Amino acid sequence: MPVDINCDMGESFGLYRMGDDAGIMPYITQANVACGFHGSDPNHMRSTVALASQFGVKVGAHVSLPDLPGFGRREMKIDRDEMVNIVLYQIGALTAFLKLEKMTLSHLKPHGALYGMAARQEHIAEAIADAAALYCVPVTGIAGTLHEEVYARRGVGFIPEFFADLDYDDQGRLIITREHEAVAPELAASRAVAAVRDGTLTTTGGKKLPARAETICIHSDTPNAVKIAQAVRSALSQLDAA
Amino acid sequence: MPVDINCDMGESFGLYRMGDDAGIMPYITQANVACGFHGSDPNHMRSTVALASQFGVKVGAHVSLPDLPGFGRREMKIDRDEMVNIVLYQIGALTAFLKLEKMTLSHLKPHGALYGMAARQEHIAEAIADAAALYCVPVTGIAGTLHEEVYARRGVGFIPEFFADLDYDDQGRLIITREHEAVAPELAASRAVAAVRDGTLTTTGGKKLPARAETICIHSDTPNAVKIAQAVRSALSQLDAA
Amino acid sequence: MPVDINCDMGESFGLYRMGDDAGIMPYITQANVACGFHGSDPNHMRSTVALASQFGVKVGAHVSLPDLPGFGRREMKIDRDEMVNIVLYQIGALTAFLKLEKMTLSHLKPHGALYGMAARQEHIAEAIADAAALYCVPVTGIAGTLHEEVYARRGVGFIPEFFADLDYDDQGRLIITREHEAVAPELAASRAVAAVRDGTLTTTGGKKLPARAETICIHSDTPNAVKIAQAVRSALSQLDAA
Amino acid sequence: MPVDINCDMGESFGLYRMGDDAGIMPYITQANVACGFHGSDPNHMRSTVALASQFGVKVGAHVSLPDLPGFGRREMKIDRDEMVNIVLYQIGALTAFLKLEKMTLSHLKPHGALYGMAARQEHIAEAIADAAALYCVPVTGIAGTLHEEVYARRGVGFIPEFFADLDYDDQGRLIITREHEAVAPELAASRAVAAVRDGTLTTTGGKKLPARAETICIHSDTPNAVKIAQAVRSALSQLDAA
Repeated sequence: MPVDINCDMGESFGLYRMGDDAGIMPYITQANVACGFHGSDPNHMRSTVALASQFGVKVGAHVSLPDLPGFGRREMKIDRDEMVNIVLYQIGALTAFLKLEKMTLSHLKPHGALYGMAARQEHIAEAIADAAALYCVPVTGIAGTLHEEVYARRGVGFIPEFFADLDYDDQGRLIITREHEAVAPELAASRAVAAVRDGTLTTTGGKKLPARAETICIHSDTPNAVKIAQAVRSALSQLDAA
Repeated sequence: MPVDINCDMGESFGLYRMGDDAGIMPYITQANVACGFHGSDPNHMRSTVALASQFGVKVGAHVSLPDLPGFGRREMKIDRDEMVNIVLYQIGALTAFLKLEKMTLSHLKPHGALYGMAARQEHIAEAIADAAALYCVPVTGIAGTLHEEVYARRGVGFIPEFFADLDYDDQGRLIITREHEAVAPELAASRAVAAVRDGTLTTTGGKKLPARAETICIHSDTPNAVKIAQAVRSALSQLDAA
Repeated sequence: MPVDINCDMGESFGLYRMGDDAGIMPYITQANVACGFHGSDPNHMRSTVALASQFGVKVGAHVSLPDLPGFGRREMKIDRDEMVNIVLYQIGALTAFLKLEKMTLSHLKPHGALYGMAARQEHIAEAIADAAALYCVPVTGIAGTLHEEVYARRGVGFIPEFFADLDYDDQGRLIITREHEAVAPELAASRAVAAVRDGTLTTTGGKKLPARAETICIHSDTPNAVKIAQAVRSALSQLDAA
Repeated sequence: MPVDINCDMGESFGLYRMGDDAGIMPYITQANVACGFHGSDPNHMRSTVALASQFGVKVGAHVSLPDLPGFGRREMKIDRDEMVNIVLYQIGALTAFLKLEKMTLSHLKPHGALYGMAARQEHIAEAIADAAALYCVPVTGIAGTLHEEVYARRGVGFIPEFFADLDYDDQGRLIITREHEAVAPELAASRAVAAVRDGTLTTTGGKKLPARAETICIHSDTPNAVKIAQAVRSALSQLDAA
């Protein structure tokens, strides 16, 4: 594979189900596993890491603000010290299940509101960097925003990601929607190929803009997520062979 | 020191304070650090581990049932698989703060209702053993009960503890009280010495019974806990020198 | 309708969905609305009560042990005073949303582990009775068990329920399963009719036993719950007309 | 009494203690009772309402953002609909304990971060007004800020409060500190008298500014809170007699 394919995994909570993890896992290379602060719980973390291990998928910590009722999507004011500790707690918890599978942590990817906060607020990016540095792992995120500078300055790796199942506006900004709508798997696949092979993306207004992608993100809550994952995987594999 | 002195630490939660950790830490050798399921939070876990590190105190995971409102003191029916996962999550979370201080996990000590459940219910003892085996650490607990057999069979270390600040009845059973009353520091110290040097304890009825103590437990919520810790430490140190 | 039809409702939590409330509500007469301790949250409670109001469905409080991660299905040791307070808190919270719809509380129905605890443990039944008495509402539950005596003694109404989508063993005991399997809607309907019209149930061994039913319970998490509700409603309506 | 004296009450949580409620209750006339979202739990809510009842103290709902680990002091982005529902849930829960004491709800007072959000963000003030209107109670808050206009427009009562134990800067703005420092009881009392009798306050820079006070707020976590409450009560009582 020329690049990674990542997906948020293990977000089920108790009896509540979220995403078709078993359906998607065969097609991705990086699982961002929820750590109990926006979704998941010890049981789901264990089974998700075991599933990733079975398919040889790398596991990163999908760390969140402490907000289970809001699924980590409500921004909170939080200072750097508390943010570091909250992130460390979640990473640590995940490492117990990695240890069980004799795996090591692959990367960090902030979830939901924290994803945007890390990209925009310097003290949050610094907190993420503190945690990433301790565990010597890179951080997955949106390219061309503030946090990338922070990570570079701190010597923390950065994995720019491209969203094959979402739109970008004419300024190149990702259009984040509350509920993810179905996307034609072929469209998602062709977007992924364009981003990886040509380094370009096509905006909603039809403009061609540069794109950077070291990993392609698939959302598990898009209605046809398994089909999208399958199509993206297949297209990128052929690229690789070429 | 001929034996260890342990105390539950880091049980404060947010703005809520519990126990005089700073006052007690200088006199103990093992801190059982709460992991956020009955008390504590990422901030308090970090500062508690840092405090332990400063005084050269070993850190164990004080794992609990998931019951913050009940401070982990309400028994719950829980199966072995879920129990293992709950314990692993907490241990993992703690290891993040140990990593920050370049420390390693010293031991496990179940908290509150789980302490008694581990001692009496085989499937709970097995779950504790599963977690202890993964991290290669011994478990602290009450001697002469079911879990000791489980740990022995599983090859997991067991650290029998003696309570210098609580009473034992004529059958040698610990008398656990909801609120811990003040105990004369000299009395606690002499009990600790008797248990360690002579292997005996004196019951509420005045009987002398055998006692096993590889660690002496001090409760941080006894009103004069610092004085007790100080007296026990001093008495045991002299024993050592003798 | 000769008897009521009840269903647990409003158990979704944040983004997590549970049960097809909108599909089932048209066919029931009593909604047992979750109050945030095992499922639901303020948003789902509001929309569920509004939906019940729209269909003229009575609303009861589906009160639970405080156990969101375990969906209220793990038994906990809890004393009477705490139990009363936990139940009152949940009822009170629900009444805010009833007030918004100009509705009043119809009944109580303990959820999950608490359902069984109320039926078997006297101090729990007394706690439920304390709360029911304050709000002057009856309690829905399984017939022929301890709590019925407690409620009778306390002057609290009792609504015996019959489960049309579950089996009863030859001793007349309900067979509770973790996951509810699909049941033929016609079978559920004929069981409901037999219980209501003839006062009988047929056990898994084929025995005919007496049954008492003032309300028929439909589980929303049975795969074909809407079809079952529809069939039971239709059959009972015809009974009524006869 | 010419004005009310209010204090946040019932903020203890499980075994964790916060504030000397029993010491302060005799001197106040309005208790703002925590509802379990930043502090308190069903047990503490019940005992606090009972204590207020015993001293003839009015009870208001001290509603908060859902943030127990942060004691409700971390701002969150929250929309109006969810805010209303969160506030209604808490008020409803409190009314159960009021019903037990045959009391009715007296007022609302947002807590912590929500106190400031209500004063500044229109959609939050509207949400508070929605809840207050349903229960026909006024809202306690800081005078001269946005929410006062919202409440006036909505026909919801507003109770301006003056802080006798905090400082005001030369622009008349309250200086909110994370930890409340001890204040001489006589100083707090004289400030309360000046605000109530003369309608003035003295700033940290020595300026005299107009003050509006229909209720005087005492913080229970100021080290000498009981003495302050006693002094303020005594001084205001004499004012009344004059």
